[in-house]
Amino acid sequence: MSELLEQRLCTELTKLVLIDPHTHINPHSPASKTLADIMGYHYYTELAHSSGISKSQIEEPGLDPKTKVGRLVESLKNLDNTVQVSWLIELCRKFFGFSDDRITASNWEKLYDNAVAKMAEPDWEDQCLKQSGIERVFLTNEFDDPLTGFDTKRYIPCLRTDDLVFHFTNPKVRERLAKATGIEPTSPAKVRQAIGKLFEHFVRHGAKACAISLPPSFSPFRPTGSDLDEHQFNAGFLEAESESKTVGQNWIFWTIAEFCAEFKLPFDLMIGVNRRVYPAGVFQGQDLFDQRVSLIQYKDLFNAFPQVIFPVSVLAQVSNQELVSYSWIFPNVVTNAHWWYSNIPAYIELDTKARLQAVPRNKQIGYYSDMYKLEFAWPKFSMYRRCLARVLAQDFVIGRRWSEDEALSLGRQVLRGNVESIFQVD
Amino acid sequence: MSELLEQRLCTELTKLVLIDPHTHINPHSPASKTLADIMGYHYYTELAHSSGISKSQIEEPGLDPKTKVGRLVESLKNLDNTVQVSWLIELCRKFFGFSDDRITASNWEKLYDNAVAKMAEPDWEDQCLKQSGIERVFLTNEFDDPLTGFDTKRYIPCLRTDDLVFHFTNPKVRERLAKATGIEPTSPAKVRQAIGKLFEHFVRHGAKACAISLPPSFSPFRPTGSDLDEHQFNAGFLEAESESKTVGQNWIFWTIAEFCAEFKLPFDLMIGVNRRVYPAGVFQGQDLFDQRVSLIQYKDLFNAFPQVIFPVSVLAQVSNQELVSYSWIFPNVVTNAHWWYSNIPAYIELDTKARLQAVPRNKQIGYYSDMYKLEFAWPKFSMYRRCLARVLAQDFVIGRRWSEDEALSLGRQVLRGNVESIFQVD
Amino acid sequence: MSELLEQRLCTELTKLVLIDPHTHINPHSPASKTLADIMGYHYYTELAHSSGISKSQIEEPGLDPKTKVGRLVESLKNLDNTVQVSWLIELCRKFFGFSDDRITASNWEKLYDNAVAKMAEPDWEDQCLKQSGIERVFLTNEFDDPLTGFDTKRYIPCLRTDDLVFHFTNPKVRERLAKATGIEPTSPAKVRQAIGKLFEHFVRHGAKACAISLPPSFSPFRPTGSDLDEHQFNAGFLEAESESKTVGQNWIFWTIAEFCAEFKLPFDLMIGVNRRVYPAGVFQGQDLFDQRVSLIQYKDLFNAFPQVIFPVSVLAQVSNQELVSYSWIFPNVVTNAHWWYSNIPAYIELDTKARLQAVPRNKQIGYYSDMYKLEFAWPKFSMYRRCLARVLAQDFVIGRRWSEDEALSLGRQVLRGNVESIFQVD
Repeated sequence: MSELLEQRLCTELTKLVLIDPHTHINPHSPASKTLADIMGYHYYTELAHSSGISKSQIEEPGLDPKTKVGRLVESLKNLDNTVQVSWLIELCRKFFGFSDDRITASNWEKLYDNAVAKMAEPDWEDQCLKQSGIERVFLTNEFDDPLTGFDTKRYIPCLRTDDLVFHFTNPKVRERLAKATGIEPTSPAKVRQAIGKLFEHFVRHGAKACAISLPPSFSPFRPTGSDLDEHQFNAGFLEAESESKTVGQNWIFWTIAEFCAEFKLPFDLMIGVNRRVYPAGVFQGQDLFDQRVSLIQYKDLFNAFPQVIFPVSVLAQVSNQELVSYSWIFPNVVTNAHWWYSNIPAYIELDTKARLQAVPRNKQIGYYSDMYKLEFAWPKFSMYRRCLARVLAQDFVIGRRWSEDEALSLGRQVLRGNVESIFQVD
Repeated sequence: MSELLEQRLCTELTKLVLIDPHTHINPHSPASKTLADIMGYHYYTELAHSSGISKSQIEEPGLDPKTKVGRLVESLKNLDNTVQVSWLIELCRKFFGFSDDRITASNWEKLYDNAVAKMAEPDWEDQCLKQSGIERVFLTNEFDDPLTGFDTKRYIPCLRTDDLVFHFTNPKVRERLAKATGIEPTSPAKVRQAIGKLFEHFVRHGAKACAISLPPSFSPFRPTGSDLDEHQFNAGFLEAESESKTVGQNWIFWTIAEFCAEFKLPFDLMIGVNRRVYPAGVFQGQDLFDQRVSLIQYKDLFNAFPQVIFPVSVLAQVSNQELVSYSWIFPNVVTNAHWWYSNIPAYIELDTKARLQAVPRNKQIGYYSDMYKLEFAWPKFSMYRRCLARVLAQDFVIGRRWSEDEALSLGRQVLRGNVESIFQVD
Repeated sequence: MSELLEQRLCTELTKLVLIDPHTHINPHSPASKTLADIMGYHYYTELAHSSGISKSQIEEPGLDPKTKVGRLVESLKNLDNTVQVSWLIELCRKFFGFSDDRITASNWEKLYDNAVAKMAEPDWEDQCLKQSGIERVFLTNEFDDPLTGFDTKRYIPCLRTDDLVFHFTNPKVRERLAKATGIEPTSPAKVRQAIGKLFEHFVRHGAKACAISLPPSFSPFRPTGSDLDEHQFNAGFLEAESESKTVGQNWIFWTIAEFCAEFKLPFDLMIGVNRRVYPAGVFQGQDLFDQRVSLIQYKDLFNAFPQVIFPVSVLAQVSNQELVSYSWIFPNVVTNAHWWYSNIPAYIELDTKARLQAVPRNKQIGYYSDMYKLEFAWPKFSMYRRCLARVLAQDFVIGRRWSEDEALSLGRQVLRGNVESIFQVD
């Protein structure tokens, strides 16, 4: 009975058209062209590599898409248990007329060809969004993205600031900033001015969020004095490995938070990733984490900017209770989806239970797809909806005797309503 | 079938009259007078604030109880998903004839008036305890509480020592100690003598436990030498922000543990809270935690005092496995309930499963309410009993084919039997 | 229906004959002689002690086996809830004709006598293995074990290296190394040479793995220079408490990893144990852990030895997500069973769910018994099989509509197939 109830709730939730509040979609090429665009997603290349295939097999220069897919298909026998491969099967069945349970040496070529044909249809992008029940998609834009040539109502800009904070000592980043803003970032005042220009540019083009991913060691603090002095600036940014690097990173981070306040943009914090832990790994398959991290590191920030909303994503599942508790206490902290290594049903379900039990319902962003290509919204949101429906069924309809309508209303709020209210998407 | 079994077990467990081994009840005013006493509980004010209402709205000076409740009721639409609000609904239905599922703008005034009328009945305290199935209640007493004017058989004193350990550098605390004991705490020997007097006073008035809450950074160690020397004493206590503060805090903590041994009092350790993380929060809604804490920090303590029982509560859910393991190895470490941010069904159920699977059954204190007003014992213990019944049903009756009686016997032991034996409540 | 499905899967999985990839079996005395060998397992003595019985009662010199069992039986009333005691009951019912649900004052003597009689049968070892569905068993051999006098096909040697790395400053360990290899370990070159001889010896006798248990603080790094210099060597090894101890430990550890590469042996890392946390505890009942540990500490190692497979066991359950993620990214990191304080159903089930959802199926070693006596393989593997069957039923057959055969094939691979392929057991 519980199973039928879950299905009923899931079916209803699937009817709701969604806004996806965090993706890596390229708005100039949002959908895939071949199955290689889909199976080239780092989830498959890194798992294939982990299961035994060499990096050179996968990343051979000049490899044509079909050969690449053929090679990756060989690894699937070691990966069919993973939820990531279940996404692949699910999207192939949804979009490309695939009717088998597994992609194998004997059926992949037909699938490949069918997919190519489907993706070649001129309105594939629209079809895919429509079939996926998605109408708007947040982007992750480099700070010097011109933000032109696409529909910013459908593809909502988001200012990603990792490079500014963590790679400002890299001359190329400073050059990009100069070029984007017309301001040479040679002093703290000039850097601040340049960042202000970025915010103006982004907001003018409809940006609805600022975002950054942060290593477990990061612990922002209020800069002393009103601004960085010349010495710290030089030490922090111009001398790459200096001790003051942290001071410089912190100062830029804090300056960005100040502009979020000024421009009324939520600041997405994606907390806990260590970059390049496995440098010999495949593209985008090199990052991991250290579970020894705490939101207490963000105490000063949360207190200093009560007017800024911080949708927080945590990489380590052990951070979820802190996220629940900080969102329960701080008005400006909001739970944001299930990120990366925590984005598997075992953790989504536990984390969803705790959030729905203890965080105000208007402060929970249920899910984002984090996708690079549109085809992934469907299976990823479907996975989340199944977890959500299970928790709603077990903890609310059965456990607390809510009506199904009341449970669905809660589900719809975390799936869509809060995305609208928190990011002010009209 | 599993669901009916759970219900059957829960119904049986509910018949057992309980002793609540940790509360913040004021024995001179144990029950509520209006719904404002209930909805003024920090769980509601902090959640209401977190969901959007300003602190000044909630804590406006001179606010009359009914207006305050009216303001908080407006927030409930954002909070009805939380288990904390489910406690509120449950107690209103149990005690005040409330028959709706939600408290809203249109039904709260009648509820308020009904509650006032009920609470005005002269025997409301007795009624409430009786209906809640509670007969005795542990208190949390300041060290200078005279402990008079109430029935210490019903309201069992407990010596709370946070101020002595963590605020001894505050002259007011030292004055309170002098006043309570007649001893000016101007040297280590005098402090020890004064603390000894507190223990005598508390034990004479029927105290059954000593208790303290501890920050994640605390790591007690055996003081070197038999006592603190004069220099350390001055540095540790009289100079507020000195480096030796830790030495001083540690010395008092250790001295308290020595008196627990001498007076045969269990020492409740409530591990992991950071105070005033959100200083702009509402009253009692400012504390949070850092999950990076370990019971290894208490290794010296547990080894030094084998004769003292330490009922340990942990704030971070990630600490539960350590708590299970330390209780499995150390004879003097006992699991103590589900504290604060871990006191939601998602975590209670996981933690209860692990404890029942791996800790001796005579070393588990199932639950305490932590309540400030008597009305909360019913819904909080009910929440726990449902979790307990589910684990007993699934893991013992179904999973291990125990009879229902055997499972109930285990349930009764963690609910009541161990409270009697561990705290020596006769 | 789900329950029947789980049972069906479990029954099928139980038919598979297994290789146990980590135990502490003494191949010269693999099975028990009396119930004291079984109830003397540290799981029972430490739990009995924890529940109230004194260490001297359990470890009284000259205590005869039957009296010892009688004393331990008295504690069982406090322990019958534990999964460890459920193993005991289960093995007594399986092997010794025991038909009760609990071992008590009134039935233990008959059980004791029946067990003695059964164990005295000349082929008890063979019977026990056969009934348990186990055909081969990995050992944990001291580095100076001669590895003779037993069937190394049945009892597969494994080189345990804790003493070399963590107790090399102990002169006795260096003497044992000199004696075992004929090389006085008086310089880095000689130590390397001696360790090389150990590897030759072990591989010649059919060793299939090298293993070590590691404290939470350990964080290996690539030694600077090609080898340890004379000064570091003396400081690191010959002066017991010197600051360079860590350098010395690290150098030996790294040298062992180099030999694992050379001899193509997987290197089992058992991460996270603190030794002698409760030094007054019973034999083997003194160790605990600190959950503040991360696999990031092994980043250099995993990168430096891509050709070495590292089957990783973690003691803290909070480490499981890191283990899942590191195994998903690093080709040479493999998940290895459920160790010690994580070896209870509550954690096995959660951890198994996450692993099966996100780690390539060819990189998961489902379980090892860690047993000291053969009789424990049956109840421990049975516990694991029930957890595994539940996850396969819920997440794969029901959740992802796999056929039962497909689910069983996954189950068989983690139970046995991967043990064969990862350890190259033919």
